[in-house]
Amino acid sequence: MAEHHLDDSVTQPFWDNSVTPRLEVNSGDTVVMDVPESCGQVTPKWTDADLAQISFDPIHALIGSIFVKGAEPDDTLQVEILKMDHKGWGWSGHLKGFGLLQDDFETAYIHHWKLEGDACLFGVQDIRLPFEPFFGTLGVAPREPGRINTIPPRANAGNVDIRHLNRGASVWLPVFVRGALLSCGDCHSAQGDGEVCGTGVESPMQTAVRLTVRKDLAVRELQFETGSPLSRTDRAGYHATTAHGPDLMEDAKNAVRHMIDWLVKAHDLTRSQAYVLCSVAGDLKISEVVDAPNWIVSFYMPKSIFGN
Amino acid sequence: MAEHHLDDSVTQPFWDNSVTPRLEVNSGDTVVMDVPESCGQVTPKWTDADLAQISFDPIHALIGSIFVKGAEPDDTLQVEILKMDHKGWGWSGHLKGFGLLQDDFETAYIHHWKLEGDACLFGVQDIRLPFEPFFGTLGVAPREPGRINTIPPRANAGNVDIRHLNRGASVWLPVFVRGALLSCGDCHSAQGDGEVCGTGVESPMQTAVRLTVRKDLAVRELQFETGSPLSRTDRAGYHATTAHGPDLMEDAKNAVRHMIDWLVKAHDLTRSQAYVLCSVAGDLKISEVVDAPNWIVSFYMPKSIFGN
Repeated sequence: MAEHHLDDSVTQPFWDNSVTPRLEVNSGDTVVMDVPESCGQVTPKWTDADLAQISFDPIHALIGSIFVKGAEPDDTLQVEILKMDHKGWGWSGHLKGFGLLQDDFETAYIHHWKLEGDACLFGVQDIRLPFEPFFGTLGVAPREPGRINTIPPRANAGNVDIRHLNRGASVWLPVFVRGALLSCGDCHSAQGDGEVCGTGVESPMQTAVRLTVRKDLAVRELQFETGSPLSRTDRAGYHATTAHGPDLMEDAKNAVRHMIDWLVKAHDLTRSQAYVLCSVAGDLKISEVVDAPNWIVSFYMPKSIFGN
Repeated sequence: MAEHHLDDSVTQPFWDNSVTPRLEVNSGDTVVMDVPESCGQVTPKWTDADLAQISFDPIHALIGSIFVKGAEPDDTLQVEILKMDHKGWGWSGHLKGFGLLQDDFETAYIHHWKLEGDACLFGVQDIRLPFEPFFGTLGVAPREPGRINTIPPRANAGNVDIRHLNRGASVWLPVFVRGALLSCGDCHSAQGDGEVCGTGVESPMQTAVRLTVRKDLAVRELQFETGSPLSRTDRAGYHATTAHGPDLMEDAKNAVRHMIDWLVKAHDLTRSQAYVLCSVAGDLKISEVVDAPNWIVSFYMPKSIFGN
């Protein structure tokens, strides 16, 4: 099986099933990719003011498309994630009009992370997260024609921001067009379930994936398997907030609001730092969705990230 | 600090802030409780036909109310969960008009579990879950007067069905009336996040809690801390299904539907068995709730429960 390389000199900030593939590979081949940070423009020097002026044109700065020989509509494309190595830096932030609590946070805030070995250093109160990298965006060309925005996830997967599409995972995607035309990027060094402020630890990375056409499998939407525990933050337990009510979205917002209040008080963070920390380290769970008319959404913050 | 005992000869299937307390304790005391199965009527001999005729009158069969001296409105009641021991048996099931996929499952189905030491035995395909017990219902008397149904969770907490209110957890509840008037029950030997078919492994249990009035804490809704990893099923990884779309409830339904399809095919279960297994072992996660207009809900099934 061959190994191919794609550098970050060309990015593809759209879905389009008529795009000319950048690379053609056989089923079973490996592709090593140099992936820029998700927005294709942010640098370690960016300020809050820079983030407020971010351009959506280069988003997402995806690597691809990759034509996989033998892939036909209704097949499944298997993506095994082999390697994800950081380059020492990442960023998070919140932005006007974006994120779960966009009504509560109206200005832009950028937070820079130092990535050292196996740790993401927050730079405040000794808070550190384990480096748990994944592809935020991973998708095939859509069935429908035309240039399509990459922000929302769709039937072709794409910007699913599932934190467990990590090293060692196998991902299965439905194929809509000949060759599948995989593109991926938007690598995160850490993120919680929900990505509540709208960003994880956005990081340029060196990655590698193995691509295999599966004619024996059919999936209607992305499915995946992990072979390892879900998080290395799990060992010391959690502080969890909860919210009840008839709307899961409102419950999610309220659970995160309760957690921000707790973080500001218990760990002496600013509200922006707390919101970002929720996004990169906290997990939104649907605790129950059957005790009508009120559901419970819970938000879990691992205690291990606070040191001591 | 004193230790008190409450047997299961009297249950309280409602919330009511004018109820006569069954027990009065000092802050810091421990209460040992014999808790019946959640519905106060199901036995190991029940059939599908019995479940179809279940009475909602004795639900939930709660133990309480407990008056905690010194608790005043706006205080916080701390509940430390010290002990939860099963009695060898539990049940799960689905019921017409109840559960996340009530449109897909129109008949009643009961599944009996054997609980042996630290395991819940499904009785099919060597499937076994770790015994991970918790209180499904734990609440104080509500602020509003009158007799109030225990099915939906509310500001007084109650039927929150959060699977981590387990041994070792500390739970904080807002106090609305003098003495707090705690009641609890609805013990589950295992359950996934979501409780998607509407039941966990419903089990009678021997339990113990320590109750403490906290005047130094204020919570707007239930909060809790666990000191241990979230699940002992975590070691072997997961199979996960995902669903995208603009409504979290529909996404949750579709993610569970994809998992049922997978379980039936990969593990040769009936659809009812698969639905119950989703409820007791699978976890609903909000993977992202920011990439408008489509959110991702994922459903994770631990691979360790399948043996081998």
